[in-house]
Amino acid sequence: MTTPSHKALVPFVSVDNMMQLVHSIGIETMLRDLADYVEADFKRWELFDKTPRVASHSDVGVIELMPTSDGEAYGFKYVNGHPKNTSEGLQTVTAFGLLADVYTGYPVLLTEMTLLTALRTAATSAVAAKHLAPKGADTMAMIGNGAQSEVQTLAMKAICGLKTVRLFDKDPAATEKCARNLAQAGLNVVRCKSPEEAIEGAQILTTCTADKQSATILTDNMVGAGVHINAIGGDWPGQTELAAGILSRSDVFVEFPPQTRI
Amino acid sequence: MTTPSHKALVPFVSVDNMMQLVHSIGIETMLRDLADYVEADFKRWELFDKTPRVASHSDVGVIELMPTSDGEAYGFKYVNGHPKNTSEGLQTVTAFGLLADVYTGYPVLLTEMTLLTALRTAATSAVAAKHLAPKGADTMAMIGNGAQSEVQTLAMKAICGLKTVRLFDKDPAATEKCARNLAQAGLNVVRCKSPEEAIEGAQILTTCTADKQSATILTDNMVGAGVHINAIGGDWPGQTELAAGILSRSDVFVEFPPQTRI
Repeated sequence: MTTPSHKALVPFVSVDNMMQLVHSIGIETMLRDLADYVEADFKRWELFDKTPRVASHSDVGVIELMPTSDGEAYGFKYVNGHPKNTSEGLQTVTAFGLLADVYTGYPVLLTEMTLLTALRTAATSAVAAKHLAPKGADTMAMIGNGAQSEVQTLAMKAICGLKTVRLFDKDPAATEKCARNLAQAGLNVVRCKSPEEAIEGAQILTTCTADKQSATILTDNMVGAGVHINAIGGDWPGQTELAAGILSRSDVFVEFPPQTRI
Repeated sequence: MTTPSHKALVPFVSVDNMMQLVHSIGIETMLRDLADYVEADFKRWELFDKTPRVASHSDVGVIELMPTSDGEAYGFKYVNGHPKNTSEGLQTVTAFGLLADVYTGYPVLLTEMTLLTALRTAATSAVAAKHLAPKGADTMAMIGNGAQSEVQTLAMKAICGLKTVRLFDKDPAATEKCARNLAQAGLNVVRCKSPEEAIEGAQILTTCTADKQSATILTDNMVGAGVHINAIGGDWPGQTELAAGILSRSDVFVEFPPQTRI
């Protein structure tokens, strides 16, 4: 064997590497820095070669590929969504991604994206809230208290100045775990027994669920004028976090309409 | 850190690993075994969740994702096509792929597919020729003598009993290299100076070029009745190996019509 070209060796960032990176930078700093990149990319949105996700559905979940390119760098993410996994001791979502050089087609970086997906989703939500939520909003209802909800809350604190989070999950153990993990975050954390209790006094309502059973999380009469809703979980048919009536009387902002319409 | 679950560790097959595998099994045996899998999969074709390739084009090449699933295993391939790469000392095609478990969405294998793509393409061509080429065909014209042409030729020998290959490339150095690499393969290797010379007496014509400059390799008057054409390179707009007239008077067999129509 001759020695392979340096281009034949693709650096890999493992989950362990990424956790070390997050711990060394600090999660709030990392979320703020990510938000800056997200915001900068929205400003050059037209440059990107965008396509709806390429999804392969089964009875128990979905596997998706999400490619894009800005003409110089090409990237895609592999991500699954299997809500039943948690009951089997596995994660709902795992992800990895690849970066490649458009000019040569050669891969240049392979990285875990399970953590990155959580961070990027949270940072993007916070960028949206920064521009769209009522001025001075400092209280958020967080409905759905899985792993993602913790990162969402930290991003809202780091980027939007959130002071209070009001937690609700249909599984009280999820709320308890989330509250425990957020205990040292410098936030006022309130455990709630119903969605109605969670939204009391909140200017920002975040729904963060993975259920595909057409469950409605926010009904029409729960949502008054002037609140900002951050609906994360409703990204596939059967995921109906918001009653249709809420959408029809709201200003709706989405990232990529062809994907949202699916 | 707790020790990660064994599901968190995904085995990786490098190019070096794959070369060792090919050498240890023997390339002709490997091609025959691959051909058996390819044939078995064509017999259960309806089971697969098929989609056209997801392509990202640039001025100098294309990067594609090719996902599929049979309901139990999900797989995708990342592959680029950059004809200009060879002039820069790089490969036209590099590829890798992932296998995942549909039930959990978890990746189970990451593998190089640069070599696998070459082997699979060659094995599939040979499966097609086995069923479609004239009985007793033992001479092939190979037009386009890059790296892929060697594997194509070996597959035709291993699976279809090829005895003679007639090589032509617009770059005589490519023909020379291919002939040299096939010298020990137990074949009669003939170097030709034109496409017309290459096709003399050949019952199988294989075009294996990567040019997107709308060059026609086989013109209408070059191809008589009863020959089997194996057109590998014509898989994107601008890749026009065959004159349209040849297609209109031939029986045409393709793998996946929605992809072929693109």
